[in-house]
Amino acid sequence: MRDVSIIGIGQIPVREHWAVSLQVLGAEAVVLALQDAGVERPGALYVGNMLSGQISAQENVGALIADHAGLRGIEAAKIEAACASGAAALRVGYSAVAGGLHDVVVACGVEKMTDASGEENTVALMGAADAVYEGEHGLSFVALNALLMRRYMYEYGYTREAFAGFSVNAHRNAVHNPNAMFRRAITAESYSRAKMVAEPVSLLDSPAIADGAAAVVLAPTELARRHGLRAVRIAGSAVATDSVALHDRPDPLVLAAAHASAQRAYAQAGRGPEAIDFFELHDAFTIMAALSLEACGFAAKGQGVRLAMEDAIAPTGRIPISTLGGLKARGHPVGATGLYQVVEAVLQLRGEAGDAQIPGCRVGMTQSIGGSGANVVTHILERIDD
Amino acid sequence: MRDVSIIGIGQIPVREHWAVSLQVLGAEAVVLALQDAGVERPGALYVGNMLSGQISAQENVGALIADHAGLRGIEAAKIEAACASGAAALRVGYSAVAGGLHDVVVACGVEKMTDASGEENTVALMGAADAVYEGEHGLSFVALNALLMRRYMYEYGYTREAFAGFSVNAHRNAVHNPNAMFRRAITAESYSRAKMVAEPVSLLDSPAIADGAAAVVLAPTELARRHGLRAVRIAGSAVATDSVALHDRPDPLVLAAAHASAQRAYAQAGRGPEAIDFFELHDAFTIMAALSLEACGFAAKGQGVRLAMEDAIAPTGRIPISTLGGLKARGHPVGATGLYQVVEAVLQLRGEAGDAQIPGCRVGMTQSIGGSGANVVTHILERIDD
Repeated sequence: MRDVSIIGIGQIPVREHWAVSLQVLGAEAVVLALQDAGVERPGALYVGNMLSGQISAQENVGALIADHAGLRGIEAAKIEAACASGAAALRVGYSAVAGGLHDVVVACGVEKMTDASGEENTVALMGAADAVYEGEHGLSFVALNALLMRRYMYEYGYTREAFAGFSVNAHRNAVHNPNAMFRRAITAESYSRAKMVAEPVSLLDSPAIADGAAAVVLAPTELARRHGLRAVRIAGSAVATDSVALHDRPDPLVLAAAHASAQRAYAQAGRGPEAIDFFELHDAFTIMAALSLEACGFAAKGQGVRLAMEDAIAPTGRIPISTLGGLKARGHPVGATGLYQVVEAVLQLRGEAGDAQIPGCRVGMTQSIGGSGANVVTHILERIDD
Repeated sequence: MRDVSIIGIGQIPVREHWAVSLQVLGAEAVVLALQDAGVERPGALYVGNMLSGQISAQENVGALIADHAGLRGIEAAKIEAACASGAAALRVGYSAVAGGLHDVVVACGVEKMTDASGEENTVALMGAADAVYEGEHGLSFVALNALLMRRYMYEYGYTREAFAGFSVNAHRNAVHNPNAMFRRAITAESYSRAKMVAEPVSLLDSPAIADGAAAVVLAPTELARRHGLRAVRIAGSAVATDSVALHDRPDPLVLAAAHASAQRAYAQAGRGPEAIDFFELHDAFTIMAALSLEACGFAAKGQGVRLAMEDAIAPTGRIPISTLGGLKARGHPVGATGLYQVVEAVLQLRGEAGDAQIPGCRVGMTQSIGGSGANVVTHILERIDD
């Protein structure tokens, strides 16, 4: 298979874009990424999206966004893997370029949540979980994460305050990101006082409803080199799955798919966690950040939260995470998130992250989690030496 | 890229499966296909589905069906391209095997429509069209096809009765298919008397709400040969898109994406329409059958309907279509349809189509249309010589 690189990136600010439609959000990110790459017409467009049907009564968004981006005629499809949809679209694009189906493709993630009420979004988001075994009980997706967080606190003897560092770090980093939704720092004290959504998950443990779109352009690394393009290599790309329902796992505090997905990506890249300079993980909830760090080899079982307590996740720490705000503070427009993570990793590896820059970083990892660990997509990205 | 073959097929009867869930329908088709191929664990599962979110409040169906099929852990994703979703999943699987991402993958199509009312399905199906420019006017998807059919009759001077042959042929062929939903022959007379849904589209021009799932197993042709597996080659695979909204096309009676998709598949296969022994086309509406035959080079513009009037589409005719009942009579569980078409083409090419067998066929074409021609996936399948 061919070595693949990201040769262009595009993103629009994560906001409540009340006046802008799904297809315009997506098309703008696609056009920005193509302009950044200096490419006019890719061979295919893969659109990561979760909620368009339930929230906007719109499917067929692959063809729709291709047309709105001025690409009528090209191959297109929507790719869905719940909250990992954007990363799953990148994965399908990676396969197409690495395998030779197309030389240049665009992977775009888009979500337009403000077309419906908060209640409707709560119902729609529950589609990431198991409708038969979990949804039927009246659980929301936040409630599932509250069960996990409570179990973690019970098993390992932590208080809720142990998780504060994840939120503090995310908000601190988002201050430097003009595309972030919440650009204000918070303190551990404000975390302690935050209003509860589903105890112990508070407003500062969970993301807001948001609209957004991000996109990347992929091409063979050799082609990028030949044309002297600014490129970031995809050194590892992997997907793994687990049961969708939490009750059906041997230990709900082990994200087996995150572990397997990371291991496959490490193996392909020929690198382990010690080689990762920063990690854009799926901090949709603070508990997910802790479990991800454990699953991917950055902390032992029950110790993930200590990395936040010790601030080892800060830009200058041992393993920086959420370097431009993460899902918590940059925002989590669900199906778009996987590509925001990748766009931000590319900014870091290009040295274009401004005041959020991780000095001298050369290898970054991104991981997106669909459902409570049911579908996990991991990518390892590398700077190419000049 | 590697030559790819279909080494296993599975399908469940198209019915109203009130008591069976989406994930069980899908998993059963996957298991049947794996058993047919003699494969235990594929590298990935791609699930074509359109309506799971809107109808069953369930997304993440890639991981969900992988788990229910006993494949927890493998790579999985849902692929959506409206009514072409099943074929789009096959296309992603084809890319993965041809390109080398995986040696063996499963592409599955599944739709469970009876989880909601007919009215809810009518709203959800409109997601295949443009919600902003078409849905806002209160149009249903049937109404869009009625506009196209009326325009065709007006432009070329046909009466409604000219389309009868498509429905008569589909129902006649479905009699021989145990997996078909409507296994009874109809006459041109009964077509004339059929109740209207949206004039001139009647009950006998359009498919019913249905549940179903179908799947295929893909592997490199060389691997299939080495293990002596019964295989059908994918000689051509292509996707093309058009505007989603009908008003935005130079001529709404030209399916430009169907034309482009077929031309790309012909070019890859090194064959033209004259080499196609049978054509599993997207006869969701009789007008779509006529327009598809024209777009793919089997009839001149305005002449597609003549193939039905002359019965050239019969099993013994010049270009047999809907050989096991088509979308009209086998049934059209939307996201599953693309893979029913492919499973049926494989049955024909293996010589296992029973009383519906096209004698001596060697090359078949399948085409799935998402929306009114917005996203079109074409595959050309070939028998491998012993």
